[in-house]
Amino acid sequence: MKKIAILCGDGIGPEVMKEAVKVLDTVQKKYSFNLEYKYADVGGYGIYKHGTALPDKTLKSCEAADAILFGSVGGPQWEHLPPEEQPERASLLPLRKRFNLYCNLRPAKIFKSVVASSPLHPSIVKEGFDILCIRELTGDIYFGQPKGREGAGFSERAFDTMVYTRAEIERIAHIAFAEARKRRKLVTSVDKANVLTTMVFWREVVTEVAEEYPDITLKHQYVDNTTMQLIKDPHQFDVLLCGNMFGDIISDECAMITGSMGLLASASLNEKKFGLYEPAGGSAPDIAGQGIANPIAQILSAAMMLRYSLDQSDAADAIEAAVEKVLSEGLLTIDLSRGKLKSINTSEMGNSIVTKI
Amino acid sequence: MKKIAILCGDGIGPEVMKEAVKVLDTVQKKYSFNLEYKYADVGGYGIYKHGTALPDKTLKSCEAADAILFGSVGGPQWEHLPPEEQPERASLLPLRKRFNLYCNLRPAKIFKSVVASSPLHPSIVKEGFDILCIRELTGDIYFGQPKGREGAGFSERAFDTMVYTRAEIERIAHIAFAEARKRRKLVTSVDKANVLTTMVFWREVVTEVAEEYPDITLKHQYVDNTTMQLIKDPHQFDVLLCGNMFGDIISDECAMITGSMGLLASASLNEKKFGLYEPAGGSAPDIAGQGIANPIAQILSAAMMLRYSLDQSDAADAIEAAVEKVLSEGLLTIDLSRGKLKSINTSEMGNSIVTKI
Ligand SMILES: CC(C)[C@H](C(=O)O)[C@@H](O)C(=O)O
Ligand SMILES: CC(C)[C@H](C(=O)O)[C@@H](O)C(=O)O
Repeated sequence: MKKIAILCGDGIGPEVMKEAVKVLDTVQKKYSFNLEYKYADVGGYGIYKHGTALPDKTLKSCEAADAILFGSVGGPQWEHLPPEEQPERASLLPLRKRFNLYCNLRPAKIFKSVVASSPLHPSIVKEGFDILCIRELTGDIYFGQPKGREGAGFSERAFDTMVYTRAEIERIAHIAFAEARKRRKLVTSVDKANVLTTMVFWREVVTEVAEEYPDITLKHQYVDNTTMQLIKDPHQFDVLLCGNMFGDIISDECAMITGSMGLLASASLNEKKFGLYEPAGGSAPDIAGQGIANPIAQILSAAMMLRYSLDQSDAADAIEAAVEKVLSEGLLTIDLSRGKLKSINTSEMGNSIVTKI
Repeated sequence: MKKIAILCGDGIGPEVMKEAVKVLDTVQKKYSFNLEYKYADVGGYGIYKHGTALPDKTLKSCEAADAILFGSVGGPQWEHLPPEEQPERASLLPLRKRFNLYCNLRPAKIFKSVVASSPLHPSIVKEGFDILCIRELTGDIYFGQPKGREGAGFSERAFDTMVYTRAEIERIAHIAFAEARKRRKLVTSVDKANVLTTMVFWREVVTEVAEEYPDITLKHQYVDNTTMQLIKDPHQFDVLLCGNMFGDIISDECAMITGSMGLLASASLNEKKFGLYEPAGGSAPDIAGQGIANPIAQILSAAMMLRYSLDQSDAADAIEAAVEKVLSEGLLTIDLSRGKLKSINTSEMGNSIVTKI
């Protein structure tokens, strides 16, 4: 029996997780497999209960599990903490490092039925779009050494090191080309090779890896240009391949242009297919406790978990198909129903999806 | 008599520069001052004529001048060159370093008459918006040492150093607060203090400088969030303050959401008010030679030059007012006239502006 660690976190986390678990219960019955759930505290709630955003007990639960289903963390109660101690940072970064979660997959897709939610001009998104953003997640300036502070007075200085090894670039590039092969066969690699030595190297290694995939087209694009192209013409992209720092920026921009943050899942994987799965949106403290949050991102994160870590791709397909059906019937939570009179709440959305499975 | 070095560059550069010079000629007569123009080669044209994007003779002309009016550089002919030798990079970075152009001002404004050109949803930009993006331009990971490559095989690695000193952060922060004082009194400082030591320091120093400006509100925002907020609600911003790397990304995104790249000017200044002035858009090789490019960004760059480097702010005001008038009369070049039948060409636009001065 596979075990999953469930880390609900803060804000809407527990509410949307409840719906994801409903859906997991349903597919287990339908596809005859069993999951053991192990709940653990994380984020602001971890700080409140145990004095730390990632308590030891939680880390142990994750170590004993086959995958982590993560809710979302943070909120105004913790905003006074120094940036390094913010719940999101203080839980996610150590988890990524501990489990070597180097591969972050963030699909950014506009579902046809909710194209109107996009903040982009209707003429740009009329057809929807479907981008898979792949972000390297354990290297780059996030973890590069040295980092530090020195000197005093006017010449006091602080520094960080951006660094990539060939091995790190190769393994994430292989993922990008392999994923592109299942899709529209285009990889756009994002860099800043006109300024950064690390990114000259990135471009070189990605180009070398591309030779093993002659059926895939590789384009290189400077990160500043990508930021613009995503707004001007998101259809030009299929798979976006980024380092950790630029991927942080670009994947969030991708998510926002869909206009449906509440629909976007993400996976952070290691080489053994262990992964952490979480919605792209945040803990939305402004609507927490009202039962109106959109649980779809959490539910689709559970589907990704079934596909990538638990070898249950039929169950994953079934969940994704059910979500598409519910959306196409016009059943929308309040974040998506703008302009329309009727919306359904969090648990109604969970139930609607369950009935379509 | 003040001297300006005029570096037309490639693509539409020479065409739009011609119109900027027309406008400069006009204001000189009207406001009784004299400028000496010194033309010099740069960018791809520099490579073609002298084998380098920034020929010695050009550098000398800039050194002898009170300001540089820069066109735009690059094009498909030079795309085969390695990223470090691309015309844009190989001309702009050495110029910034040589003249200590640490302060990059990039106004991103939607002119009411062309709101329809924005790639954002009309409900988001209906009122237009007006952001001043201020980017530090001589520090950060662009110039930080060490940079390099080492090792071999799988562990071959490349690295860059992000670094800021207190002095560097203070001087750009002072500019941001001083500019905000002339505007809507809000500075949003963009960082990644939850991950980068350099950015923890950035946030600290900016906060300290803010104490000298009690009338200005300071907000801090993580760069990934800013990328999203710019699309979701650009009205929340007044002055955006960024380091070199994040400023590269954020200022381009700001420019794109206006939808009128052809209208955006920029200034890169040093402590002696010497500056390089250039349009935000590129050399647009696809439309070069056709006489249809929009010269307004180049003309507004000339206006910024008059204001910041040449002590001719009346002339600068007159140019900006003339541009607003022309646009509000619906005289538009093809980049702005989408949907409408009639557009005017490059020199007609220059002439129209001249007649309003
Ligand atoms: C919380 C923060 C450290 C994190 C990051 O920068 O990676 C977040 O922005 C993300 O993208 O998951
Ligand atoms: C050409 C390049 C080096 C430059 C930069 O990254 O600063 C450009 O993108 C810019 O923003 O002026």
